Amino acid sequence: MRYLKLVISYDGTDYGGWQVQPNAITIQEKIEDAFEKLTSHRPRVLASGRTDAGVHAAGQVVACPIESALPCETILRATNAHLPDDIRVLSVTETTADFHPIRDAIQKRYRYTVDNSPFHDVFSRLYAWHIPEPLNFEAMTSAAAKLIGELDCKCFETSGSPRNSTIRHLIDVEVSERRLGNGRQLLIEVEANGFLYNMMRNIVGTLVVIGRGRQNVSWLDEVLASRDRRQAGPTAPAHGLCLLHVTYP
Amino acid sequence: MRYLKLVISYDGTDYGGWQVQPNAITIQEKIEDAFEKLTSHRPRVLASGRTDAGVHAAGQVVACPIESALPCETILRATNAHLPDDIRVLSVTETTADFHPIRDAIQKRYRYTVDNSPFHDVFSRLYAWHIPEPLNFEAMTSAAAKLIGELDCKCFETSGSPRNSTIRHLIDVEVSERRLGNGRQLLIEVEANGFLYNMMRNIVGTLVVIGRGRQNVSWLDEVLASRDRRQAGPTAPAHGLCLLHVTYP
Repeated sequence: MRYLKLVISYDGTDYGGWQVQPNAITIQEKIEDAFEKLTSHRPRVLASGRTDAGVHAAGQVVACPIESALPCETILRATNAHLPDDIRVLSVTETTADFHPIRDAIQKRYRYTVDNSPFHDVFSRLYAWHIPEPLNFEAMTSAAAKLIGELDCKCFETSGSPRNSTIRHLIDVEVSERRLGNGRQLLIEVEANGFLYNMMRNIVGTLVVIGRGRQNVSWLDEVLASRDRRQAGPTAPAHGLCLLHVTYP
Repeated sequence: MRYLKLVISYDGTDYGGWQVQPNAITIQEKIEDAFEKLTSHRPRVLASGRTDAGVHAAGQVVACPIESALPCETILRATNAHLPDDIRVLSVTETTADFHPIRDAIQKRYRYTVDNSPFHDVFSRLYAWHIPEPLNFEAMTSAAAKLIGELDCKCFETSGSPRNSTIRHLIDVEVSERRLGNGRQLLIEVEANGFLYNMMRNIVGTLVVIGRGRQNVSWLDEVLASRDRRQAGPTAPAHGLCLLHVTYP
């Protein structure tokens, strides 16, 4: 048995998320299908995290055990030939049996895209949350800066999948702006040593409450101190979210 | 009767081009549908140019006669409410009966996107021509510079829709590069006082021949001098093309 580490990207629009489940086509299933076609064995692959329905990835990391002597370069080309256009394997490298893409990950980086134009940009409509009202970029930037460091993120954890500790180290939290057609995009990127369930989408929903001027920047301190999900902003929609990168030692 | 000037954007992926035709859904038809729902009259709208099947627009200009006293702002919001997600009206302004979006246009700007990555970027797969082989950016830039100025573009005109004069003034021809996921995009933008049939896609196909190293930069002089379509490169695929902007006096 060989063990492979894959880096993959996908447009999550047409999928019920990463993980195999009844009644939905998933990315995991498509990857396993591609390997089954290639090696006649169906591997059980494991990702660095299960992205939800509609969430995208530019650099998801996947562990894949295979029974095949094919070189990595051949596997790379052949799996892509068996995958639909909205999923691409970007690299295939050898790893060891003890590589565990969830447990071994030391950092992850997500990007959330907000389309802040009067009418949505047709080209990013599947990859951005459209908010036509003006957003206060400076207030969002100031709020984002408050999130950098060791932080109890309990207020950003959606119930259903609780973790023992809700302390996470947020290494980078950045809001940037780019001109786009007749409006602009706001890109919110967060890099952390781990993410609680829905944490990224809940951070974005909270920053947007501030961007809309419904709360001021100092409100964020109260939200954090409350450790109460109900005090934070709403969960931003899935389709604006993209897993950019996963770091291993 | 009132006369409106619309600026619209569309993702051309699912359409048979701009102009109404049998056996295909077109952008023009969708725009006319939206106005019919709004005003109970079906206008005949006219665009600055008929984009082909699969071609996109960020700033197409459309003339639309209407029988309605609704303010422009209301028309803007209401037409968008009646349009599918892949077509947006960006602005609606009053114009005069003699405004002719084709004849009056003094300049147009197109962008062509090439995805020059080993495996295609899933997020731009519908908006970029994927060329996995390395392209010589410097050679393409040098060739592009040769196209600036008054030029006989006969070699870039696909037959079927000939014009009296094939001389066009190319005001700007620019190749730029941007990093993208595991590769890069090359953006080829051309601004001219007019475009012959398929001219933009034929310019791109020709620059790509040079980028691939199959011909050197000086070959372009021979192609231009030949005035022969068969001497130039192939027609680049439609889905990489986007009409960016149309200029009026």
